[in-house]
Amino acid sequence: MESFDLEGYLAERRERVDRALDVFFPASSGLEKTVVEAARYSLFAGGKRLRPILCLAAAEVMGGTADDAMPAACALEMIHTYSLIHDDLPAMDNDDFRRGKPTNHKVYGEAVAILAGDTLLTEGFGLVADPNLGNNGNLPPEKRLQVIHILVKAAGYRGMIGGQVIDLEGETREMDFPTVKYMHIRKTGALISASLEIGGLLGGCEATDLQRLVRYGKHLGLAFQITDDLLDVEGDAVLMGKTPGSDVARNKKTYPALLGITLSREAAKEHVNQAVEALRTFDRRAEPLRAIARYLLERKS
Amino acid sequence: MESFDLEGYLAERRERVDRALDVFFPASSGLEKTVVEAARYSLFAGGKRLRPILCLAAAEVMGGTADDAMPAACALEMIHTYSLIHDDLPAMDNDDFRRGKPTNHKVYGEAVAILAGDTLLTEGFGLVADPNLGNNGNLPPEKRLQVIHILVKAAGYRGMIGGQVIDLEGETREMDFPTVKYMHIRKTGALISASLEIGGLLGGCEATDLQRLVRYGKHLGLAFQITDDLLDVEGDAVLMGKTPGSDVARNKKTYPALLGITLSREAAKEHVNQAVEALRTFDRRAEPLRAIARYLLERKS
Repeated sequence: MESFDLEGYLAERRERVDRALDVFFPASSGLEKTVVEAARYSLFAGGKRLRPILCLAAAEVMGGTADDAMPAACALEMIHTYSLIHDDLPAMDNDDFRRGKPTNHKVYGEAVAILAGDTLLTEGFGLVADPNLGNNGNLPPEKRLQVIHILVKAAGYRGMIGGQVIDLEGETREMDFPTVKYMHIRKTGALISASLEIGGLLGGCEATDLQRLVRYGKHLGLAFQITDDLLDVEGDAVLMGKTPGSDVARNKKTYPALLGITLSREAAKEHVNQAVEALRTFDRRAEPLRAIARYLLERKS
Repeated sequence: MESFDLEGYLAERRERVDRALDVFFPASSGLEKTVVEAARYSLFAGGKRLRPILCLAAAEVMGGTADDAMPAACALEMIHTYSLIHDDLPAMDNDDFRRGKPTNHKVYGEAVAILAGDTLLTEGFGLVADPNLGNNGNLPPEKRLQVIHILVKAAGYRGMIGGQVIDLEGETREMDFPTVKYMHIRKTGALISASLEIGGLLGGCEATDLQRLVRYGKHLGLAFQITDDLLDVEGDAVLMGKTPGSDVARNKKTYPALLGITLSREAAKEHVNQAVEALRTFDRRAEPLRAIARYLLERKS
């Protein structure tokens, strides 16, 4: 178990996801090429591909193939990227840099950045709906519809957008700890849980195993968000590609802000343990998911 | 044929669409309620419901039911409304009023307006993907996937968003007439054509009849856009609920700007004729579609 090469695994998966994204959402030569170029600028700006990798790994837990889940995995990354572009806008978090590069609106202007986000959201759903893309034609249509329905719930007001609104309102208002946790579960957790649920669904999991994957996703999402917030307090600007301290400056309601660093670290550890625990009944095909969870406690970026 | 009561027909349909939208996208009482309230503010701001009405009418051309097409019809209106909210933003067209009411960002601020648009786009796809909504459960899953795929192509960079980018770039650049026409076909025409195609598909049309509906939609979309631009030049501010003249002020490339008023009126008439001609082989069940096309030449708002 200790010998699993997570670094090699992540690198191989990242490359595979990057290749698929390039094929599924190619550059355009039409008059509208600017907006596609802008969308691809952020899509290929060095993301970790966490959500697609989780989706593919979940598909394999019960013996499904990564290829069957690839369009949905890429849709998750496109939807995640759209949310970053819109979050960075001046009217929202007003960030100039992300992953060491100027944010979308800094390069293409606000109008195109808004439309680039809209494009990624729209075309993300298209990857799952297109019958001729990847292995889509071999999958039962009901399953692809279910995938879209899970994506909508995770990305819409019941999920990510809802979390973002609560986050925005928190900048000018006090929030208690349960509200902060609830906000995180939706802002980051919903799409991460959806990645697991969608992968499991396409990989042939039955309801009980799907629930286990979703439970893993919930705890992983919280651990991810807490470690992200900890990096903003104590992280290295060079490794992170952005300046730490922005959450405090913006009065963001984070775990470290509410609980302090020590309790936040403990909370992250606890959620990682719970995530791994949720996979207890799975065999070694779940090893990548276990390793990803444990890795969060050592992340530097 | 002359006796078709278009006004009564449109009023009845509008009410039915409004009711369905209210059921399919209800207010929320959760912490994220602001964004749903903002989305519903624009969704119920007095729209003509042209796209859903066209979709329902197309479903009935070959004997399908309006109820089967209602979720998709409402999705079209939600996607249309999202595009209006984002178009009105300061970074885009910077409009303060629409249909006589303050625009979304004027009421809720830019951040929430961006998220309200994102919500409508996301949840619009959800209306078609949700298996428990309206008659969705009775429709073949492949058809609902096809509907989503048509929506994506019409709303994304190959359609509406692409047209919007070309439009934005035209504000600071010269555009020849074919480019302006191409821009309109995508910015307004794509979603209108999609309304017809989706309705026809859900109503049981075969390929040839679908093509006829799409051809009708293309010409109707152009006629709609030209008459819209003519209203901006010579319309009545009170009837329109917005101040005319904004296109000229913004150096927008419109039909009247490029062809003048007389030729633009002739072009609108020609497209209405072509739209009606495309429906030649249909029986009287296509009468609403014919009447809607003819009505464009008399519109005042």
